[in-house]
Amino acid sequence: MPELFHVLAPLDALAVFRRAVPVRATVETIPTAAALGRFLAADLRAPSSLPSFARSSMDGYAVRAADTYGATEGLPAVLAIAGEVPMGKAPAIAISQGQAALVHTGGPLALGADAVVMVEHTQLVDNTTIEIIRAVPPGENVIQVGEDIRQGDLVLSAGHRVRPQDIGGLTALGITSVAAAKRPRVAILSTGDEIVPPHAAPAPGQVRDVNSYTIAALIERAGGLPLLLGIVPDDPHALRRAAAAALAQCDMLVLSAGSSVSLRDITAGAISALGQPGILVHGVALHPGKPTILAAVGQTPVIGLPGNPVSAMIVFHLFCRPAIAWLSGCPDPPDSPPVQATLARNIASAPGREDFVPVRLEQRDGRLLADPIFGKSNLIYTLVRAQGIVRVPLDKSGLYAGEIVDVRLL
Amino acid sequence: MPELFHVLAPLDALAVFRRAVPVRATVETIPTAAALGRFLAADLRAPSSLPSFARSSMDGYAVRAADTYGATEGLPAVLAIAGEVPMGKAPAIAISQGQAALVHTGGPLALGADAVVMVEHTQLVDNTTIEIIRAVPPGENVIQVGEDIRQGDLVLSAGHRVRPQDIGGLTALGITSVAAAKRPRVAILSTGDEIVPPHAAPAPGQVRDVNSYTIAALIERAGGLPLLLGIVPDDPHALRRAAAAALAQCDMLVLSAGSSVSLRDITAGAISALGQPGILVHGVALHPGKPTILAAVGQTPVIGLPGNPVSAMIVFHLFCRPAIAWLSGCPDPPDSPPVQATLARNIASAPGREDFVPVRLEQRDGRLLADPIFGKSNLIYTLVRAQGIVRVPLDKSGLYAGEIVDVRLL
Repeated sequence: MPELFHVLAPLDALAVFRRAVPVRATVETIPTAAALGRFLAADLRAPSSLPSFARSSMDGYAVRAADTYGATEGLPAVLAIAGEVPMGKAPAIAISQGQAALVHTGGPLALGADAVVMVEHTQLVDNTTIEIIRAVPPGENVIQVGEDIRQGDLVLSAGHRVRPQDIGGLTALGITSVAAAKRPRVAILSTGDEIVPPHAAPAPGQVRDVNSYTIAALIERAGGLPLLLGIVPDDPHALRRAAAAALAQCDMLVLSAGSSVSLRDITAGAISALGQPGILVHGVALHPGKPTILAAVGQTPVIGLPGNPVSAMIVFHLFCRPAIAWLSGCPDPPDSPPVQATLARNIASAPGREDFVPVRLEQRDGRLLADPIFGKSNLIYTLVRAQGIVRVPLDKSGLYAGEIVDVRLL
Repeated sequence: MPELFHVLAPLDALAVFRRAVPVRATVETIPTAAALGRFLAADLRAPSSLPSFARSSMDGYAVRAADTYGATEGLPAVLAIAGEVPMGKAPAIAISQGQAALVHTGGPLALGADAVVMVEHTQLVDNTTIEIIRAVPPGENVIQVGEDIRQGDLVLSAGHRVRPQDIGGLTALGITSVAAAKRPRVAILSTGDEIVPPHAAPAPGQVRDVNSYTIAALIERAGGLPLLLGIVPDDPHALRRAAAAALAQCDMLVLSAGSSVSLRDITAGAISALGQPGILVHGVALHPGKPTILAAVGQTPVIGLPGNPVSAMIVFHLFCRPAIAWLSGCPDPPDSPPVQATLARNIASAPGREDFVPVRLEQRDGRLLADPIFGKSNLIYTLVRAQGIVRVPLDKSGLYAGEIVDVRLL
């Protein structure tokens, strides 16, 4: 069976794939404290304002600002100390004109106060009298009600992936559980007569499974639940049966294909046999990674990954990661911006395809250097030795040593 | 009790802290497949070479290179097909002069072959005869034994933090379990009379615990095991008791201090009472984050984090993250290089301290803009709204709009 590639540019391929895989999520309620890395399933709005009372942002004296106007070191304002406002309690002290009350950072003001003079700008005369040596406008050193967030404001949107500070923001509002997308189950089937499991001793001609475990870790990092379903021999019927069984127990299927052309045909055949709409993209203008298959069965995404490790990782990043986000209710997977580095050597490329080259990163003379690793893409240690990947855009015939390039971290 | 800061520059503070906290690890053996994000406890060397047999990197014909010399489209070399070398088996076919054998990508060569001609450079004459239209040198399209990694080579070093591709590299070598550093248990004690747990309804003057949960998530991300030990009131005896009890069950203690000066004194007192050497650094030339305490009890690191959320996160990154790495056997915590962005507005700073300003990141007109959020550092939503942090170095009095700045992602 000849291989007829109708090769699409990576972004076009992604668009075709996305149209077949609607953004959706199965929702579950989880504790906020366990939500790190999870995708939110609903918009969250603030149930109350933060802070809920006006708080001092300094240790000092709560005052009526007008009482301090004109105060200087030479001509201080002299105020009577009405007492101390303790932390953690509603203020029991009210001040009137000419009075001040001791307050603490994060604590409430005294009733009637509208500003705080920091303790460094005061001089204690005696236990009942304080001199203010700097005038303050109303609101000075005060965190107003709702200044952090206001009741009803959008806190975080559906599809947002939770970071540590988001957990703090939510617990601050008393939101101790959230509706999150269930982690999509992503099944991985490895194919190839030459592949044996990692614990097996390979006979001559055999190799251990490399990609399944790398892909499982990438799935986990992307927010999915990897299901390692083992190795299937290069037999069309066996692969079809295994793929159908895998599909029945997952939300997304990754076929980590063997590397030979005939096996790629078997993979394509097995995917086509799974159901409609079937193969959407067969071949992407990408190097390495051209023989990528993007498919859908019903609305379940199915991806045929090229067999070599470098391709598999690049294709994972370009297509699997977004698909996991779509199945988590997130239309655009959050992606760290690339790091900029100076290219250490020229990279040649063919125009009309995107080239990806693993690089070592190294600080030298105060700049970050990206040194291309021109290893064959079928070597896993090319990736182990790399810290990043440089992309040569579709319309370029290469990149030059000394150019500043974008590096995606691995 | 007056606060007497002997303020150190961040790097000096880190050096003092590091001298008191020896790099060490408790070792446990874990499955390689579960090692993502873990720190390796020992150097790993390759038990065998990869690949273990010479593999074809193409679908094509294994040949003796000398038989192809001079071959062109107009004057092909004509070779006899000796058979097919199947995937996954030791080659049973040997070729002699004038012969070729069909091979598959990733499969072994025929015995006696030293190169592969890709199928695109051949023309099948009949079932027994093939024309070679392009000459190949010895080794062409062949992955030699040990080309990926050689037996005895260093695979990964002790202290390395495992990434997805490392898992693939290890399983490829049959290394299915590794010696990893036990995840250090990092206890978090929150202090403050005004603090209530997230599920409680704060009375007037009270606020919910924000930092503990953010810090717990940061600990997890840094490779530690967070132990949330709750909230202690502003009482010296209670805090000393709680800190001593926490210390007995953890490898590192973080005191998330209340924000008032008096409470900072209580925290410092409680840390001093825990044992020798005690407080190493009290005050770092950092804004926000100046009232940081770095201490050790025996060799156990103890950190007093400032109470406000922005400071706590910055100080976590500068001091807690490295300490978790040291307790995982890693002398220098792996750190992603910063992202470069164009500063959208001026940032003022005081020379003699490092200033950290949260920023929003935004793609505009093809460049990445970093827009400073000048919110007060006691607002958690300053961090929720930010995607990164910009550092103003010690010796600078500010940064200007339009400058390219380094952004650490949050």
